[in-house]
Amino acid sequence: MSADQKQPQQQQKGKSAISPTRSEDYAEWYQQVIKAADMAENSPVRGCMVIKPWGYGMWENIQKTLDGMFKDTGHVNAYFPLFIPLSFFEKEAEHVDGFAKECAVVTHHRLEPKPGGGLQPAGELDEPLIVRPTSETIIGAMFAKWTQSYRDLPILINQWANVVRWEMRTRLFLRTAEFLWQEGHTAHATEAEAREETRKMLDVYATFAEDTMAMPVIKGEKCSWERFPGAVDTYSIEAMMQDRKALQAGTSHFLGQNFAKSSGIKYLSKEGKEELAWTTSWGVSTRLIGALIMTHADDDGMVIPPKLAPKQVVLLPIYRNDADRARVLEHCQALAKELKEQRYGEERVKVEVDDRDMQGGEKAWFHVKRGVPVRIEVGPRDMDSGVVSVMRRDKGVKERENIPRGEIAGRIVGILSEMQQGLYDRALAFQKQHTKELTTKEEILAHFTPKNAEKPEIHGGFVLAPFVDDKAVADALSEHKVTVRCVPIDQAPRPGVCPFTGKATDKWAIYAKAY
Amino acid sequence: MSADQKQPQQQQKGKSAISPTRSEDYAEWYQQVIKAADMAENSPVRGCMVIKPWGYGMWENIQKTLDGMFKDTGHVNAYFPLFIPLSFFEKEAEHVDGFAKECAVVTHHRLEPKPGGGLQPAGELDEPLIVRPTSETIIGAMFAKWTQSYRDLPILINQWANVVRWEMRTRLFLRTAEFLWQEGHTAHATEAEAREETRKMLDVYATFAEDTMAMPVIKGEKCSWERFPGAVDTYSIEAMMQDRKALQAGTSHFLGQNFAKSSGIKYLSKEGKEELAWTTSWGVSTRLIGALIMTHADDDGMVIPPKLAPKQVVLLPIYRNDADRARVLEHCQALAKELKEQRYGEERVKVEVDDRDMQGGEKAWFHVKRGVPVRIEVGPRDMDSGVVSVMRRDKGVKERENIPRGEIAGRIVGILSEMQQGLYDRALAFQKQHTKELTTKEEILAHFTPKNAEKPEIHGGFVLAPFVDDKAVADALSEHKVTVRCVPIDQAPRPGVCPFTGKATDKWAIYAKAY
Repeated sequence: MSADQKQPQQQQKGKSAISPTRSEDYAEWYQQVIKAADMAENSPVRGCMVIKPWGYGMWENIQKTLDGMFKDTGHVNAYFPLFIPLSFFEKEAEHVDGFAKECAVVTHHRLEPKPGGGLQPAGELDEPLIVRPTSETIIGAMFAKWTQSYRDLPILINQWANVVRWEMRTRLFLRTAEFLWQEGHTAHATEAEAREETRKMLDVYATFAEDTMAMPVIKGEKCSWERFPGAVDTYSIEAMMQDRKALQAGTSHFLGQNFAKSSGIKYLSKEGKEELAWTTSWGVSTRLIGALIMTHADDDGMVIPPKLAPKQVVLLPIYRNDADRARVLEHCQALAKELKEQRYGEERVKVEVDDRDMQGGEKAWFHVKRGVPVRIEVGPRDMDSGVVSVMRRDKGVKERENIPRGEIAGRIVGILSEMQQGLYDRALAFQKQHTKELTTKEEILAHFTPKNAEKPEIHGGFVLAPFVDDKAVADALSEHKVTVRCVPIDQAPRPGVCPFTGKATDKWAIYAKAY
Repeated sequence: MSADQKQPQQQQKGKSAISPTRSEDYAEWYQQVIKAADMAENSPVRGCMVIKPWGYGMWENIQKTLDGMFKDTGHVNAYFPLFIPLSFFEKEAEHVDGFAKECAVVTHHRLEPKPGGGLQPAGELDEPLIVRPTSETIIGAMFAKWTQSYRDLPILINQWANVVRWEMRTRLFLRTAEFLWQEGHTAHATEAEAREETRKMLDVYATFAEDTMAMPVIKGEKCSWERFPGAVDTYSIEAMMQDRKALQAGTSHFLGQNFAKSSGIKYLSKEGKEELAWTTSWGVSTRLIGALIMTHADDDGMVIPPKLAPKQVVLLPIYRNDADRARVLEHCQALAKELKEQRYGEERVKVEVDDRDMQGGEKAWFHVKRGVPVRIEVGPRDMDSGVVSVMRRDKGVKERENIPRGEIAGRIVGILSEMQQGLYDRALAFQKQHTKELTTKEEILAHFTPKNAEKPEIHGGFVLAPFVDDKAVADALSEHKVTVRCVPIDQAPRPGVCPFTGKATDKWAIYAKAY
C-alpha cells in the first residue's frame, strides 16, 4: 500500500457507492448509476432525456468508431428531413401500422395570441407531418428520384439523427420518446446483394459490440412477429444484461422489395428492363449506452470499457500543504504529458489531471462512480520513492498496484488493453454461465419463474431450445413475459421438437425475458 | 501540355459548366452549382432539404474542426430535447415574440383511422410542444436545476442538433425550415466572464471562417433591432458574397440575466448570497455551406477550400486499351498510397482514384463541378516520361503543371496549402475592393442602386459609414433593402455624423444588402 494512499470515504464504511445494489433492486440501481455517473437525466419534456456531457462523451466515441466502420464498408453519410408527410408514411401498410400508435404529429406552423392570454397553435397545415420514428419512407422517396439505371446502384447511405417514438413508459437510454441513432439505408439491384448487405452490417454491429463495447452478443434472425414493420427479414444482436435479461442492441433489416414498391424505387437493368430495387435498413441507438451500463457497471457505479471512455486515465494529486501541492501538481502534469503521448488504437491516451480542491476520498469516488478506467494517485512520498499507485476500475476499489514512475508511460496502453479484454471475458463468462439448453416446456417455464420472491429480477438467463416460427409459441410464452430473442445464425441445423407446438424442427432459438 | 491530356468536353465548346453564369443570373447560378456538385436538393417536405453525401461531407469537416475548437476552449457536448413545452417557450417575452410566427407545433401523439379511410392525428397533448427553433429556454430550465453554488459555474456546453424555423421562402443551405447547427450555451457567475465568453466564441468563429473556410469576415456588434430575441448584445461575423451582398455567418449572444431570470438560473455566491447567473449562446449552421459556395464557387461549379474538401486529390487514370488500363491503374494506386501517407494538418491527405469506366472529359468535369481541389491525370505516356499532370481547381480549367512523378508526394501538401491561402487572399481582395467609406445619405443610397437594370444583382458591396443606434436608420434604409450589418469591433472610435439621423457619433458601421 502506498504511503500517500487515501482510503475512499464510503469504502471505509464498508458500503458500496450505489444504493440500492444490483441484488437489492436492479431497476433502481440502474437509475442510480446513471445519476451517480452524471450521464443523463429526465427532462421536463415527457419521455425525453437530457444526455449530459459524460454520457454524451460515450455516445461521441460510439459514433466515431461506428462511423469509421460504416465508411470502411463503403457507406457515406447524408441527411434527410425530420418530418415525414402523413401520405408518405401511409404508403407501406405494415410500416404505418407498426408506428401509428406512437407518433408525434405536427399540425400547425405558428403560434398566435390566445383569447384570455398566452399563445395557441395557429396556421394549420394542409397535411399533418410525422416527426420521423424511422426514415424508410422519406428516404425511399429520395432513392426513387435518384435511381434511374443499374449504374445508380447500389446506394449506400447512413444518417446520424434524432428520432421520436411516443413511448408510454420510458427509461433513460433504454426507451425514450426521443433518441439519437444512426440509420443505414441502402438500395441494390439484386436480392443477393441486398441480403449480403443486411448480413454484413449485422456483422459490423457484432464486431463493434464485442471489440469496442466489450459486450458479447448473439447474432440471429428475428421470428416473424418481431420483425421490423415492413421488413422481409430482421436480424439482431442480442446481449445478456447482468439481471440476465436480453437486450436487443442493434438490428439489420432485409426489406425485400416492399419499400421499393411503395416508394417506386425502380431502375433500368443492363438489359433495358424496368426492375424494382431491393433495399435494406439497419440501426443502433443511444440504447447502446443503457446496454453498456447493464453489462459492465457495478455496485460502485459506472465501469466504462477503455475504448469508449471520454477520459481513460485520471491523475489524482495528493498533498497536505501548499508546498507539497506545487511539486505534486508539477509532477502530475509532467506525467500526464508523457501518458498523452501514448497511442491506444488510433488515438492518444485521454488523460486528465484532477487538480480540484476537494477532499481526496471524495475526489477518488467521483471518478470511481463515473467509471474512469484507470486512476493514478501521486503523493509526495510516492514521488520520493519513485512510484505511482495505479487503480483499475475493473478490479476491487481497494486493489492497487505500485508501478515505478519510469515504467508507467510504457505500460499504460497494456493496462487499458488488458482491462478492455478483461471486461469482455467477464461478460462472456457471465453469458455462458447463464445460458442453458432446455427442451421441454416445463423446464423452460420453470427456468423463467423466480425462485426468490424478494429478488425476482435476479433469475433466468438465456435458454437455447428448439423453435418453429409459429405464433402459438408467442402465445404460450406471453403470460410468462418470455420472448423469442432470435435464431442464432452461427449454428448448424440440429433436429429437435418445438416445446410449445410439438412440431419437428432443425432450428434452435434463444428464449429470454427482455428489455 | 501532357501527351495524354484529355480536353474536358464542355471546355472545347468554350462554355462554362454552370449555366447560367454568375453574371447572367446569380440566384439561379447558386442553385445550379448545388445541383452540379450534387450537394443537396429540395425534399418533398415543404422547406426541408436533403443534404446529399458530397454536401454532408463538407458539413462533417466543418463539424470536426469546430468541435475541436470548442473543446480546446473548454466546452463539452451534451444533448437536450427536440421539443420545448409551450409554457417554457413563453417565459421570455421577447424570445417568444421573435419565434412565434415560424414554429412547428406538435399537438398529437398518435394516428388513428379516419372515417372514410386513411389516418388522422389523435391523442391530443395537454400542452402543445414546439419543435426547437433554438434551445435557450429548455437548456435554461436544465441549467437552473444544475446550478446551486458558484462552484457549479461556469457551465460551458455545446449541442450539435437540428432546429426548425418555419420560413416561408426557403433556399438550399441559406434558409431552410429545418437546418443543422451547433448551439453553445454557457452560464457564468459574473457579467465580465459572460461577456468574455461571448467575444471569445465570436473570435473562434472568425478564426474558423478565415483559416478553415478561407472566407474573410468582419467581426462586429449587431444594432439593437437586429439582436437575437432576448439578448442584451448580439455579435456576428459578416462575409461578403460574390454578388457583394453580406451573409451573416455566425452569431454570439450576450444574454445578460434575461434567460437566467426567466428560467431561474440562480446560485449561492462565495459570500452566501443568492445571485442570478449570466448566460451566453452562440451558433453556426449549415448556412455556412451556402456561404462557402457563394465565396468560392465559379462558373464551372463548386470550389472547395482544401481543408473542407471531402476528397482533396482525385487521380484520373487515362488509357485507350485494356493493357494500358491495367498498368495505369496500378501506377495510380501506388501513387495514391504515397499521397495518402502525407499529412495535411492533423489528417492524412484524402485521395481517391476514380477508376470508373467513363469518358475522360466527362470524368474530369465531374470533379471540376464538385470542386475537388486537385486533379492529377496519369496516362501511359506520362508514365513513360516520368511525370504527372496536376490541375488545381482555383486556377483556370486549362491550366496544368507537369510535375515529376518522384516529387509529387513531397509537394502535395504545399499545393493544398497554397490553394487554401490563395482562396482566402482572393476573397479578401474582393471584399476590400468592394468596401467603400461613404459619409452622406445620397452617396450611400446611390451606391446601393443598380446601375445596370439587366444585372441588378451585381452591384453594391459594403459601405463603412458613421452610425448611431437609432431605429430611424433602419426606416431610412428599409425601402432600399439595405441593412446595418454590424459595428466592427476591431476599430478605434472615430468622430462622424450619422448620415440618416444627423447625430454625432464615434462609431462606424458596415451597411449592405444581405442574405
